[in-house]
Amino acid sequence: MYTTALRLPDRDAKPRRRGMTMVIDPGLPNAYFTDVVDSYGDLIDVVKFGWGTCLATPKLPEKIAALRRNGIDFYFGGTLFEKFLLNDRIEEWSRFCHEAGAQTVEISNGAIALSNADKAHYIRRFAGEFTVISEVGFKDPARSERLPPNRWIEFIQQDLEAGAQLVIAEARESGRSGICRPNGELRYGLIEEIADSGIDMTRVMFEAPTKELQVHLLQRIGPHANLGNVHSNEVIGLETLRLGLRADTLTDFAGTDLPAVDQELPTHA
Amino acid sequence: MYTTALRLPDRDAKPRRRGMTMVIDPGLPNAYFTDVVDSYGDLIDVVKFGWGTCLATPKLPEKIAALRRNGIDFYFGGTLFEKFLLNDRIEEWSRFCHEAGAQTVEISNGAIALSNADKAHYIRRFAGEFTVISEVGFKDPARSERLPPNRWIEFIQQDLEAGAQLVIAEARESGRSGICRPNGELRYGLIEEIADSGIDMTRVMFEAPTKELQVHLLQRIGPHANLGNVHSNEVIGLETLRLGLRADTLTDFAGTDLPAVDQELPTHA
Amino acid sequence: MYTTALRLPDRDAKPRRRGMTMVIDPGLPNAYFTDVVDSYGDLIDVVKFGWGTCLATPKLPEKIAALRRNGIDFYFGGTLFEKFLLNDRIEEWSRFCHEAGAQTVEISNGAIALSNADKAHYIRRFAGEFTVISEVGFKDPARSERLPPNRWIEFIQQDLEAGAQLVIAEARESGRSGICRPNGELRYGLIEEIADSGIDMTRVMFEAPTKELQVHLLQRIGPHANLGNVHSNEVIGLETLRLGLRADTLTDFAGTDLPAVDQELPTHA
Repeated sequence: MYTTALRLPDRDAKPRRRGMTMVIDPGLPNAYFTDVVDSYGDLIDVVKFGWGTCLATPKLPEKIAALRRNGIDFYFGGTLFEKFLLNDRIEEWSRFCHEAGAQTVEISNGAIALSNADKAHYIRRFAGEFTVISEVGFKDPARSERLPPNRWIEFIQQDLEAGAQLVIAEARESGRSGICRPNGELRYGLIEEIADSGIDMTRVMFEAPTKELQVHLLQRIGPHANLGNVHSNEVIGLETLRLGLRADTLTDFAGTDLPAVDQELPTHA
Repeated sequence: MYTTALRLPDRDAKPRRRGMTMVIDPGLPNAYFTDVVDSYGDLIDVVKFGWGTCLATPKLPEKIAALRRNGIDFYFGGTLFEKFLLNDRIEEWSRFCHEAGAQTVEISNGAIALSNADKAHYIRRFAGEFTVISEVGFKDPARSERLPPNRWIEFIQQDLEAGAQLVIAEARESGRSGICRPNGELRYGLIEEIADSGIDMTRVMFEAPTKELQVHLLQRIGPHANLGNVHSNEVIGLETLRLGLRADTLTDFAGTDLPAVDQELPTHA
Repeated sequence: MYTTALRLPDRDAKPRRRGMTMVIDPGLPNAYFTDVVDSYGDLIDVVKFGWGTCLATPKLPEKIAALRRNGIDFYFGGTLFEKFLLNDRIEEWSRFCHEAGAQTVEISNGAIALSNADKAHYIRRFAGEFTVISEVGFKDPARSERLPPNRWIEFIQQDLEAGAQLVIAEARESGRSGICRPNGELRYGLIEEIADSGIDMTRVMFEAPTKELQVHLLQRIGPHANLGNVHSNEVIGLETLRLGLRADTLTDFAGTDLPAVDQELPTHA
């Protein structure tokens, strides 16, 4: 890289607690998945195998090996937890995660009728065994839209108190639920309230599967916002947004320890 | 896979006549294509080389070899048939398909002014030489929207009587024509009429290039619906929808021979 | 390829000045990128490493080597030029491009407040050192929409007179700015005025990241229109549109030296 001439935000090295990027694997073919994590493993902190895809992936151990050699953590989507819970097989879920080599699990209630208090119970139960990531927000757009900001904040705090290391704010893979409206628009007021709630933003990760979401969250939270559900082919794109190397954030972030960028340009006309 | 603990629908093994997944190749690079079919070949029944892409693909034999070793059938999109027909070169089309090693062909009238009766003539003519897949529905959205359900059903029956092994219900690669409206919405009434028509649903495949289409068709026809125009990176995603491992169908399909899933959840609050 | 039986437009061989296809790399993983250019390098004239992605790409030289062996030119997105200019580091930008082995550069003002006259100054300044591609149009949709056709034409001419080899008409990666409206619709009147302006269409390239844009531009300018910001997985798709092998252009282009395609079809009903 040849960035010394430019004033860019400093990025923390891995393992980091801010500026984390979580990539979602919706079921990528194996060699392509390996290519992604080998090509820019330093830019990826954690991979989520989306929902229950791990159970339909023929060669899951190959993918996990590629993550290990690139120092990338992984976990299975919260919907897998919910499916095992629906089938009253929560011990089998825990055993499955251990056998797959997962050190992190996601506990959520996005698709089932489980209260946040009951979700927190499971967070407490598994926080000794695994690093627990929890999720707030529902997958059904109408149900999610009825959840007001003060409840989001209450649930995030409840999850953290129960032992979650990180709380994910839901947007689905499509960016059309959770922190987004069904038409894909971000719930700006919700983001404002979360950002102003006093919750430590290094303990929250926002799902941001589209460039529009990424841009707004970086501009509001800063270049070190934790962003998730990033598509595998947009990891570099997100990195350029964090660094101010794409039009959308070109003048937003000066290097933190540097004077502000001077936008006065020389003129020759 | 570690699915014994969960109640999931039983999937038939290949070669199968229901629950088939057809993947469209819109011109993928070669190594990626090979990666797709090597990674989850058991989940793919047939690949369609979309429209006339085969004529612009420099190393087609490499792709075909990868399909062969994974037991995946293939054919060239019906638009290729229509182009040769427009050029009055139908014998050359047949020869091209044979020389490429195709055992299956698609015969359609989606883009040209060919009556269904005339299409059926070509189905009859080539049914001895090839396995014939036919297609009903037009690529022009306005023309397709004017085709009422009773005509769809009549055309599907006419194609089957002429010797088609399988009839495809058109939606294009985009999901914006045929069984869909120009805005991408499914024609729900049309699906209802086809599903209730008495036509054997193992002889029909619905093009369903988006998750929304897949979810509705699986919920309406069942987890063994034949679905086509599936994108190469969504094969695992579709499989999880069939198995009830994604939020959208999480509680839809209990294992066929098992009691219904109990959605009463334990409570700890 | 087996196209001799069909009447198709003749495509020029590389290196060509019309019918050029520019592929945008938004940060593809390395093996996939190599796969793309090895699979259909003859169909790709030039690759643009989008915006500032080159600075966030860990193994850029690997990608450049793959381009070289396939005879594909490359350059870095104009936003990189603009970022170095904002930081008053234009000499470092030139040095970076030379050291990376770039023979072509893009000079633009899509994201910064630089007049076209000032942009032309930089075109003149670097036209001796590099092959210069310039860009007209702004990335901000509202700002771009206020730029009337006569100004577009004036700016294109000014850039050509300053020494640009090729002028790109902006549409972004999304097709939602520049020659497009914020809703993605093409500015048809603008295309008409540019096409009728007398400007040599081999010196202009239109960004056309969606099939709808590609279809309209090919139908209006002809199958040899220069099109850019083509996604890596749509190179074959665009080629089939140029050749009349996809429904959207199936009857548009007869071979240039051949009689028109006869659309009268045989009837058997």
